[in-house]
Amino acid sequence: MDYGKKSVELHRKKRGKIEIKSKVSLKTINDLALAYTPGVAEVCREIGQDKSQSYQLTNRANQVAIVSDGTAILGLGDLGPEAAMPVMEGKAIIFKEFAGIDAVPLCINSTKVEEIVKFCKMIEPSFAGINLEDIAAPRCFEILAILEKELDIPVFHDDQDGTAIVLLAALINTCRVSGRALKDLKIVVNGAGAAGIAITKLLLHAQVADVVVVDSVGIINKKRAGLNAEKKQLALVTNKSNKSGELSDALMETDVFVGVSKGNILTVEMVQLMNHQPFIFAMANPTPEIMPELAYLGGASIVGTGRSDLPNQVNNALVFPGLFRGILKAKIKIVTPELKFAIAMAIASVIKPTKNKLMPLVMDKRVVLAIEKIIIKYAQK
Amino acid sequence: MDYGKKSVELHRKKRGKIEIKSKVSLKTINDLALAYTPGVAEVCREIGQDKSQSYQLTNRANQVAIVSDGTAILGLGDLGPEAAMPVMEGKAIIFKEFAGIDAVPLCINSTKVEEIVKFCKMIEPSFAGINLEDIAAPRCFEILAILEKELDIPVFHDDQDGTAIVLLAALINTCRVSGRALKDLKIVVNGAGAAGIAITKLLLHAQVADVVVVDSVGIINKKRAGLNAEKKQLALVTNKSNKSGELSDALMETDVFVGVSKGNILTVEMVQLMNHQPFIFAMANPTPEIMPELAYLGGASIVGTGRSDLPNQVNNALVFPGLFRGILKAKIKIVTPELKFAIAMAIASVIKPTKNKLMPLVMDKRVVLAIEKIIIKYAQK
Repeated sequence: MDYGKKSVELHRKKRGKIEIKSKVSLKTINDLALAYTPGVAEVCREIGQDKSQSYQLTNRANQVAIVSDGTAILGLGDLGPEAAMPVMEGKAIIFKEFAGIDAVPLCINSTKVEEIVKFCKMIEPSFAGINLEDIAAPRCFEILAILEKELDIPVFHDDQDGTAIVLLAALINTCRVSGRALKDLKIVVNGAGAAGIAITKLLLHAQVADVVVVDSVGIINKKRAGLNAEKKQLALVTNKSNKSGELSDALMETDVFVGVSKGNILTVEMVQLMNHQPFIFAMANPTPEIMPELAYLGGASIVGTGRSDLPNQVNNALVFPGLFRGILKAKIKIVTPELKFAIAMAIASVIKPTKNKLMPLVMDKRVVLAIEKIIIKYAQK
Repeated sequence: MDYGKKSVELHRKKRGKIEIKSKVSLKTINDLALAYTPGVAEVCREIGQDKSQSYQLTNRANQVAIVSDGTAILGLGDLGPEAAMPVMEGKAIIFKEFAGIDAVPLCINSTKVEEIVKFCKMIEPSFAGINLEDIAAPRCFEILAILEKELDIPVFHDDQDGTAIVLLAALINTCRVSGRALKDLKIVVNGAGAAGIAITKLLLHAQVADVVVVDSVGIINKKRAGLNAEKKQLALVTNKSNKSGELSDALMETDVFVGVSKGNILTVEMVQLMNHQPFIFAMANPTPEIMPELAYLGGASIVGTGRSDLPNQVNNALVFPGLFRGILKAKIKIVTPELKFAIAMAIASVIKPTKNKLMPLVMDKRVVLAIEKIIIKYAQK
């Protein structure tokens, strides 16, 4: 099926995917007097006296901003803020459908760290949390780090930690299905943007055997010149056997391929270089690094992609609705590595996995409940 | 009825007044593949190639931002951005109910002109228009002037021009009911904030006999020291008889009182100072400058307020839904004085007015249609 063409038709017919809806009636003069003037003045006064009442008397407690500068849209790259909107509207309806959260897409016309930070600070009074989205690395790391320090509401960069959590959940279920253990897995992460770096950090926290990270230049190791701060840091803690070269060099004697890069860059031959019956997670969107049938042809035993229309979807849409539901309810500001691991476990545990049904479906309502539950439990400790 | 208490109860029960709603189904894997990945990538690509497609393929064409810094909330003053949200949510549901427009309240944490300007520039890619709201004068004039020049989408400051247009509509119908003519009316405008200054400008454009503007210090005239730029400009074109002193001095020998100031500052005795059977528009919210029964006691022949629960509501809620409907459809960027006058005429013409039913109700669906029609007609010329 040509999802692209059909999707454009759907978007054109509906003129996008979100709308604003009123929670109160506006049919009579009495309705208007309560929702607007004169009644609303007293509501304003109450919040004016105690700002925290905005969580009780407006939609703020349930309201999240999705902020993007459009510089790293899916695997497509920098197409500008207008072009990011279809993805953000998609996130917004997923937020609503699966977690009941009202998410407002704000695609913004600036790519400067200090301006994006300032923007998020300015919208803080209107929202209970901020979901950063499709902002290119390495700026996204800096923006998140500043906002985590300087905002009172939680900030989450889905492309980093959402992707890392869902990939870890997939690996956990891969171990359950295959009888392998995380600590024995040697993993190649292809792509050192927001997702690749966050995945690597979480995998190391989960104590896998080794991770080798490959970017568009080649394998990241201690000798490589010109690395940015994040990659320099990665070079110190990854690649134990000090590999160098390109992706095919990295794949030798590894068990798992994690792709957060570009479509069609992993070949059958490259899969064959890996250890026996490797696990392939080709998560680039919309086109995976390798299509599942080719990965299986190369000897893979378990294959996942980011796409909704293929089996074993490993997509952060499994994470962000429940994660925000949980952190808003539990009033948690920072999602620690321990909590990320616990969330991955919770997602993985929703189903009894098989090779072809490795992960719960995005529309499985148990996922959000499981994530919410584990976050609340974590917060109580 | 205690609208304040009832309104707080309603807001607490409903947790505010707006929510996000999906326009597409998300029940199946196919739904997800069309609304999100992989299908959505093609939608992003189309907009990436032609940004104007964001008006066709996302909700942008129907989406307006309501931006406020919370410094001039109703007649309550500077209560901060959190406290502005109940009013902005109220505007949002009025936008939706009466004009089908999706308005997103953004109450922001800055009161600096350059930061608010930058903020509006940053959100431009996500919206078809911006409605500035409850930003104190004189900053609001500067912000609007800069944005009208530097943005490609329309920007409208409702407290200025929305209020001016609806007051002019009320005056037009006052003339129809009383047999008077605009050109013969001597008018006192009490309040020289955003609304007062915009009202005065539009009344002068409509060629009323004279306007005397009074602020918290007293009558504005050419001799007064310490006036800001906007008030200095007003001093040159108002107050033909060069009055000085306070509100009661201003009221002598005038026909109309327009209040956009504070509650309960006009007394029965002050109304008695005015010409025979004066017209009183006490538009402060939530408490009018004088309650209607007292104004009538002082000899007023026609009285209007801003409130939904009193007869003759003169509120910009009669203007902004239709105005945005019209300018978005007609792709008009600047609302000229000529167009403001035409819109006021259109609102006034919706009903055959009487003393006690001077204005159409906010929920009268003919109002939005009449405004939209006149704007489209204006755009075609």
